[in-house]
Amino acid sequence: MNLNATNIAIIKRLLGGRNSRSLKAILLKIEAADLSKLFSLLNDREIRLFVDALMAVDKASDALKELPPPNLIEIFKKIDTQKLVTLLTYSPEDDSSYFLSLLDEEEAIQILNLIEPTLRKRLNQLLSYPEDSAGRDMSTQVFTLSSSLRAQDAIEEVRNRTQEESVYYIYCTDESGRLVGVISLRALVTAPAETPLSEIMKKEVVTVKPTTNSQKVAELVSHYDFVAIPVVSETSELLGIITVDDVLDIIQEQATADIYATAGLQEDDRVYTKPKHSIKNRLPWMLLNLMLAILVSGVVALFEETMSQLIILATLNNIVAGIGGNTAIQTLTVVTRGLATGDFNFISYYKAIFKEVRVGLTLGIATGTCAGILVYLWKGSAVVGAVICVSMILNSLVASSMGAIIPILLKRFNRDPAAGSGVLVTTLTDSFGFFSFLGIATLALKYFT
Amino acid sequence: MNLNATNIAIIKRLLGGRNSRSLKAILLKIEAADLSKLFSLLNDREIRLFVDALMAVDKASDALKELPPPNLIEIFKKIDTQKLVTLLTYSPEDDSSYFLSLLDEEEAIQILNLIEPTLRKRLNQLLSYPEDSAGRDMSTQVFTLSSSLRAQDAIEEVRNRTQEESVYYIYCTDESGRLVGVISLRALVTAPAETPLSEIMKKEVVTVKPTTNSQKVAELVSHYDFVAIPVVSETSELLGIITVDDVLDIIQEQATADIYATAGLQEDDRVYTKPKHSIKNRLPWMLLNLMLAILVSGVVALFEETMSQLIILATLNNIVAGIGGNTAIQTLTVVTRGLATGDFNFISYYKAIFKEVRVGLTLGIATGTCAGILVYLWKGSAVVGAVICVSMILNSLVASSMGAIIPILLKRFNRDPAAGSGVLVTTLTDSFGFFSFLGIATLALKYFT
Repeated sequence: MNLNATNIAIIKRLLGGRNSRSLKAILLKIEAADLSKLFSLLNDREIRLFVDALMAVDKASDALKELPPPNLIEIFKKIDTQKLVTLLTYSPEDDSSYFLSLLDEEEAIQILNLIEPTLRKRLNQLLSYPEDSAGRDMSTQVFTLSSSLRAQDAIEEVRNRTQEESVYYIYCTDESGRLVGVISLRALVTAPAETPLSEIMKKEVVTVKPTTNSQKVAELVSHYDFVAIPVVSETSELLGIITVDDVLDIIQEQATADIYATAGLQEDDRVYTKPKHSIKNRLPWMLLNLMLAILVSGVVALFEETMSQLIILATLNNIVAGIGGNTAIQTLTVVTRGLATGDFNFISYYKAIFKEVRVGLTLGIATGTCAGILVYLWKGSAVVGAVICVSMILNSLVASSMGAIIPILLKRFNRDPAAGSGVLVTTLTDSFGFFSFLGIATLALKYFT
Repeated sequence: MNLNATNIAIIKRLLGGRNSRSLKAILLKIEAADLSKLFSLLNDREIRLFVDALMAVDKASDALKELPPPNLIEIFKKIDTQKLVTLLTYSPEDDSSYFLSLLDEEEAIQILNLIEPTLRKRLNQLLSYPEDSAGRDMSTQVFTLSSSLRAQDAIEEVRNRTQEESVYYIYCTDESGRLVGVISLRALVTAPAETPLSEIMKKEVVTVKPTTNSQKVAELVSHYDFVAIPVVSETSELLGIITVDDVLDIIQEQATADIYATAGLQEDDRVYTKPKHSIKNRLPWMLLNLMLAILVSGVVALFEETMSQLIILATLNNIVAGIGGNTAIQTLTVVTRGLATGDFNFISYYKAIFKEVRVGLTLGIATGTCAGILVYLWKGSAVVGAVICVSMILNSLVASSMGAIIPILLKRFNRDPAAGSGVLVTTLTDSFGFFSFLGIATLALKYFT
């Protein structure tokens, strides 16, 4: 059932009333991902009742984890501590540890202390993994069976032990809980009844460590078209699995991070982020850019005398810098994206740089010639036309080389190419653009007028 | 087994020799996705032999489809027509239609004519779906069973009919081939032997049409955490399924398209693209930018007289435009990404615009004040310092409003906000930046000096 105006109205009415059975019935029919959209339509009292109702139908954690973090934090503030403890106790461990990670430290510790010790220890363990690691992404509910079971008993176990529709692989462990193989449900179903799992399982399993970077996990899963990848400890103990739907989220987040990086934005700066937080986030970037702009102006200032003599230079200099900037950004984008998506499996760095420079130079010759002619027609000065043409060609050479080389170097030195390149390349290109245009113009003024 | 220097050397040696059994044995052990990386290390003769060997172990289409399109086209040129026909005949239909879509039209028709009529008709059908539609992405090998079968017979069918490890859902059809339900392998395994599928299947199935946009399919699958989604005709006939690994590819491509759009790049312009193709792709964008830069210069030209009187204005004007541009791009990026990832499910357009303008204005006041003070210290002119401060504040107001409003408007009118916004917003901000700075300076010169 989809969420629509009618059933939103019904749910809101039922939240106020006492008929919890009808409410449960309707909530059971709607996907958790859709239910999460309801929160923004409810007042504080309704939110508390809605969380209760979701907990009663076992959909609270699924619905809550779909919310943007700031909204979720707001909701947690509205729920009383004891309710939160209950939620964290009955949610899957990985969800609970995610929820805890959103609370401020003091509150998290307070709540952890109210949770029963075994679970508390396990949650603390999950929280100890670094952010953006497999340990944080993994689900700890894994269906495991002993590799010594016979196929038919294994099927019986599947029948009895799991309500989950999404059991695709069964992980086989030895007596000490070490992962020794994996078997697809299909292979299990089609195996002769008496065969032990150890004979039908696939023994070479691709695994990751809990500290493996999320990005790396996403690459593995998408490269091999896996549905899930197991996370194991140093001693091969099975800790959890990361499923392909987690990987979808990782890839979406990574794309956002890449897109954001070139604009100097932090990943948690979204349309719904509080203004204060966004300002704090963006201010350092703006100040950095201000400093760089002043530096670039310093280059322009060197030529104030030349500009005084021929004021159209002041009018035209941003054309050179602007086109250079565009060349740089196009090259940068292609190379950075190539680094992110593995395109460099199919071409060497050297060849890619050489190609980008060829492309940049050709575009520089084309746009430089156009600009030269247009400026000549507009301002009537052949010398200025020639100066703009030559400086644009030089500038695209610089822009495309910088745009291609800088991200590759950053990657070599294990820096994020998306984050650092943009501002570096643009500043260099702008400075060089102004310098070459005004510099060549100074020489031209000296010899041709 | 992973691909490494040792087994690359072994494969290359075996390709030259006659021992096809050892070659097959080694190829069977390596994942198709890894085998595809080998192509770039082989010469023409080896490539032909390698394709033969891959076909012999039934891995040709899986390995080939991992290659970047231009590389794949090159390889197809090296294979003789009859071999290509064989490859297309024995590959999964969706892979074959993808391969055909890469060939130029004449060649595709020639090859289609050599393919046996039933398959040809089906391939033509697949090729008739629009690009970036579910019909192009779907796999046509779907495991279907009649809904009247009993659970135990269904398991028998799974055993007999499929070698695929990746059967997660079984689609149930009625006598006329219409999709009537879906059942997970787990539910099938755990159902009592005599139950007909129609009693255990889930009857409410989320489906898409073959013409549904790929982006929409990706949203559905990732929103609901599906492993696969069925594609049905207008009459509910089951045409194929799209699996989550296809969705991973769609999301990667979409991220690339979004990142590329703001830089005016086409999606097929990659590090390995031929220079000629990249130049043709990028030239229109560069020329558009040249025209816009000249337009912006037209604004600056209005103030040549003012600049002649006070040449430091020419030095400083790019600071105002630069900082405005950064404000615009940050706002634009946050809003565009919000539109792409569904963040607007949790905030209204109106509130988001208001927030961005508040943020932009605050940043403008901060950077404007800094710039004013620095310019006063650098150039010793309080008037110029005040002018730069005021114009930067005004410009950030304009930049953040434009950056927030334009992508939302484009989305409203069903245009791609990522593609159109950047250049529009930057041009407006640059023009306004120069206009306000030089305009206010002109007024200031008139009254304060």
